[in-house]
Amino acid sequence: MGMQDFQFYDTTLRDGTQQEGLVLSVDDKLAVARCLDRLGVGFVEGGWPGAVPKDTEFFRRAATELSLANAVLVAFGATRRPGTSASADPQVRALLTAGTEVVTLVAKSHPRHVELALRTTLAENLAAIGSTVRHLVHAGRRVFLDAEHFFDGHRANRDYALEVVRTAAEAGAETVVLCDTNGGSLPDEVGEVVADTLRSTGVPLGIHCHDDCGCAVANTMAAVASGARHVQGTVHGYGERCGNANLLTLAANLILKCGVPALPPGRLDDLAAVGRAVAEITGRSPAAGAPYVGRSAFTHKGGLHASALRVDSDLYQHIDPADVGNAMRTLVSDMGGRSSVLLKARELGYDVATAPEAVARLATKVKELEHRGHSYESADTSFELLLREELSANHGVPSVDVLLRRVETRADCGSLPRSSASVRLRVNGVQAEGDGSGDSPVDALDRAVHQALDPWFPQLRRLRLAEYQVRLPAGGSGGRATARVLASFTDGRARLNTVGVDGDTDAAFFHALLDAVRYVLTPVGRPGGGVRASRQESAAAGH
Amino acid sequence: MGMQDFQFYDTTLRDGTQQEGLVLSVDDKLAVARCLDRLGVGFVEGGWPGAVPKDTEFFRRAATELSLANAVLVAFGATRRPGTSASADPQVRALLTAGTEVVTLVAKSHPRHVELALRTTLAENLAAIGSTVRHLVHAGRRVFLDAEHFFDGHRANRDYALEVVRTAAEAGAETVVLCDTNGGSLPDEVGEVVADTLRSTGVPLGIHCHDDCGCAVANTMAAVASGARHVQGTVHGYGERCGNANLLTLAANLILKCGVPALPPGRLDDLAAVGRAVAEITGRSPAAGAPYVGRSAFTHKGGLHASALRVDSDLYQHIDPADVGNAMRTLVSDMGGRSSVLLKARELGYDVATAPEAVARLATKVKELEHRGHSYESADTSFELLLREELSANHGVPSVDVLLRRVETRADCGSLPRSSASVRLRVNGVQAEGDGSGDSPVDALDRAVHQALDPWFPQLRRLRLAEYQVRLPAGGSGGRATARVLASFTDGRARLNTVGVDGDTDAAFFHALLDAVRYVLTPVGRPGGGVRASRQESAAAGH
Repeated sequence: MGMQDFQFYDTTLRDGTQQEGLVLSVDDKLAVARCLDRLGVGFVEGGWPGAVPKDTEFFRRAATELSLANAVLVAFGATRRPGTSASADPQVRALLTAGTEVVTLVAKSHPRHVELALRTTLAENLAAIGSTVRHLVHAGRRVFLDAEHFFDGHRANRDYALEVVRTAAEAGAETVVLCDTNGGSLPDEVGEVVADTLRSTGVPLGIHCHDDCGCAVANTMAAVASGARHVQGTVHGYGERCGNANLLTLAANLILKCGVPALPPGRLDDLAAVGRAVAEITGRSPAAGAPYVGRSAFTHKGGLHASALRVDSDLYQHIDPADVGNAMRTLVSDMGGRSSVLLKARELGYDVATAPEAVARLATKVKELEHRGHSYESADTSFELLLREELSANHGVPSVDVLLRRVETRADCGSLPRSSASVRLRVNGVQAEGDGSGDSPVDALDRAVHQALDPWFPQLRRLRLAEYQVRLPAGGSGGRATARVLASFTDGRARLNTVGVDGDTDAAFFHALLDAVRYVLTPVGRPGGGVRASRQESAAAGH
Repeated sequence: MGMQDFQFYDTTLRDGTQQEGLVLSVDDKLAVARCLDRLGVGFVEGGWPGAVPKDTEFFRRAATELSLANAVLVAFGATRRPGTSASADPQVRALLTAGTEVVTLVAKSHPRHVELALRTTLAENLAAIGSTVRHLVHAGRRVFLDAEHFFDGHRANRDYALEVVRTAAEAGAETVVLCDTNGGSLPDEVGEVVADTLRSTGVPLGIHCHDDCGCAVANTMAAVASGARHVQGTVHGYGERCGNANLLTLAANLILKCGVPALPPGRLDDLAAVGRAVAEITGRSPAAGAPYVGRSAFTHKGGLHASALRVDSDLYQHIDPADVGNAMRTLVSDMGGRSSVLLKARELGYDVATAPEAVARLATKVKELEHRGHSYESADTSFELLLREELSANHGVPSVDVLLRRVETRADCGSLPRSSASVRLRVNGVQAEGDGSGDSPVDALDRAVHQALDPWFPQLRRLRLAEYQVRLPAGGSGGRATARVLASFTDGRARLNTVGVDGDTDAAFFHALLDAVRYVLTPVGRPGGGVRASRQESAAAGH
């Protein structure tokens, strides 16, 4: 079996959805399948038709709505029930009705599981595997077999575990996937068991790992090193308990570090974008520190590193972030001091080499504000305002004084809550008032600010809230906690990311909104000489 | 070197704080050190005195305020600057002033880093290592040497990398720690390089890994398998970019899977509690799926698993969760259907075997509510209310009608914002009104509800908000997003975890608060026959 036969298999839509808190609609599942196809994943397991109603619906709709360029859709199901025939088992019939080219069957390979969970004999389990595989192959399907709890099973009764593999292959299964179902194995054991199974049976093998020991990726790679040619994983490692092997990490490791063609050539630079797109669909932000694709994956904070990075970024990065569609970032924080401020300013398109005092003042100011709960690491726009204020003695950046902010939310019995807000602001000497109402306090405040300012500053009309996140200090006493809001606006061309901190969410949002207002009202040319790149260009340069 | 000499070394307070968004005060750092000591970690690296002012302060205060039973405190610093003497280097002097028993020195072991980042010659780098180690040893310190970029260095110039190790050891360094600084190595390479270095130098070796390939834990274990007897990591894998090797995962893997005494006997069952305590201090909730310590680490959701778990929980868990101070949980979600509801009810102390229709109705209801944005996975109290409503045709659980909810926040120029709230509620036929004011809308609403209801229901006086979290759907349009609030109350005995969903944070919090109110007002005995465990006992049984 050559490397060109390597099978890269995603089970986000089935095993991934076992993750706590993860719920996907049929539309969501179709959208995730399109993302995986765009990345070039070879096989996409869509769900368990017949067992989960949503999955039955998924395959029905996929038949007409899903046009996959690269991926082969897979239906997942179990071997027939003990004591029935495969053709009479409604769940097996549902697998055929799903109409996929490939079916993956899950089967027990550990005697204890056969006896206690399946409640049948070891012989009947083998018979069920053989007859179900044959039935599906006879109906024209390619069949993969997931051997559940294989590593524990191999330890408990090696002969039986191997017999499961042989039985499936003899019945026509194309690949037998060894599953570390409870995630308790370590890389050396996985490598040894895969090698032994391959040597003893000669059957093409796959690997399916869970992260209960923090080793799912390493276990998978150990299996590949021992001859497995089929790898299962989930986007962002979604999955039950500690999750599954992270498919995105595996793609990059296998391609960049091991020369294994997990994806077709030229697809890896879409990795981070696909990771973000799937996270948008699942509504679960990926870990900032996710290997390769996380927003922190190539982010440098330490002063030591920041100084060295100015010399040569290869010194501190194991790959070029562009290879996986990510980018290097530097953080502004009290750890990094002036070096971080310098690097960040350069990233934003400012040449501050000639203004060392301004950089020193800014580093001090950022430190103070972070002490009070701000965070500029994700709020480039707010940072840029501070930078411009320091560089130009406040020329250019307008001041905004808040004379009044009032917001009221009222819910009467039987009607939806409504919020109303009033603001009185003074911007560059102009005093303006506005009212707004909406479904939520944030909505009402947003409208009140626009009503107050848009007549005076028409360029604000294109400023729109895109999204915001609330951070409350964990463990803090709820009502009295400081809220930090990270808000993302669009001005029609670029994203403006700002931060606001206050005693409650609405007030914190309000400060973030005013930073976006101030940014839009700031003239583009840098006062005090020198030309900076336009905002558009500097935003692009940052990525 | 026997196993009893195994060194387990935490660098959360130094390398961990390089993580994006992680900022620790001196008080925080002292508190984390106490947690690590309680767990039995052998060495706690406190920071870089002389380079980071906060760390200088940490060591000054640690000398009088920190009483460690088990851990040895370590100061971290660099070898002397090129062209100076160790005794004249102020940074080296600061290391001695810190007054720790152990000093860890970082040194370059990769020629390119010596030349480009340190800007000196290879010979002068070796001289700096030798003289700095000797200077510290002469002053009575135990010295560890962190060899930065060792794995890349070994690949680029093996002889030089090994010479760094030998130079440090000859000067008196007790252990040389091989660092995979950019996290680009995989387990096989790490194992080979450690074995080669140990064979070639005979120097006691340590390992320090980063997670850029998702293999930090596996890399560390490969190093131990090759003879490393010193392991560095950080709690929850905090650290720059993708983080460091997770010390908690390593502790459990090494002790439970490899028989390596990373912690003194009997400490591992404190692992999850220490993980939670450190997360409280850092303000960063640990990943739910964190191996061993995450709240999902032994949590089961799938219907297939939920059925089997009822037979034998060992079937789906690689260890007993109690070994690491964690507990098995089952989730209520549309995935698991009736099996999950049954298991969850049993976990809460209800025997529902005789009420299959109620279970079916409840499974349907949960599915509908989750579709509307609720999530009961983290809100046991809200789930228990639903369960009791179904079991007893609403007997026992009081109804609360909201006739009015109004909250206003006002900030005038120059004064702090104040919130005021009014509520009008009907509880079990009693109509009550209350007002409240506070620093935030949540605070004001909480007081208004207590003012309205406490006179009628004195048992509510002991209900206190402990903390709450806000979840907004990622990528949703901010102002119009649905907010989900997960709130945690205490009634003086146990935690009550509730969920509320509405168009804004305050409204969602209000619903979560009313669930807590309804729970406190529910009589303890189960109506309709049968006795359930008291709340106290059932809460304990769940852990």
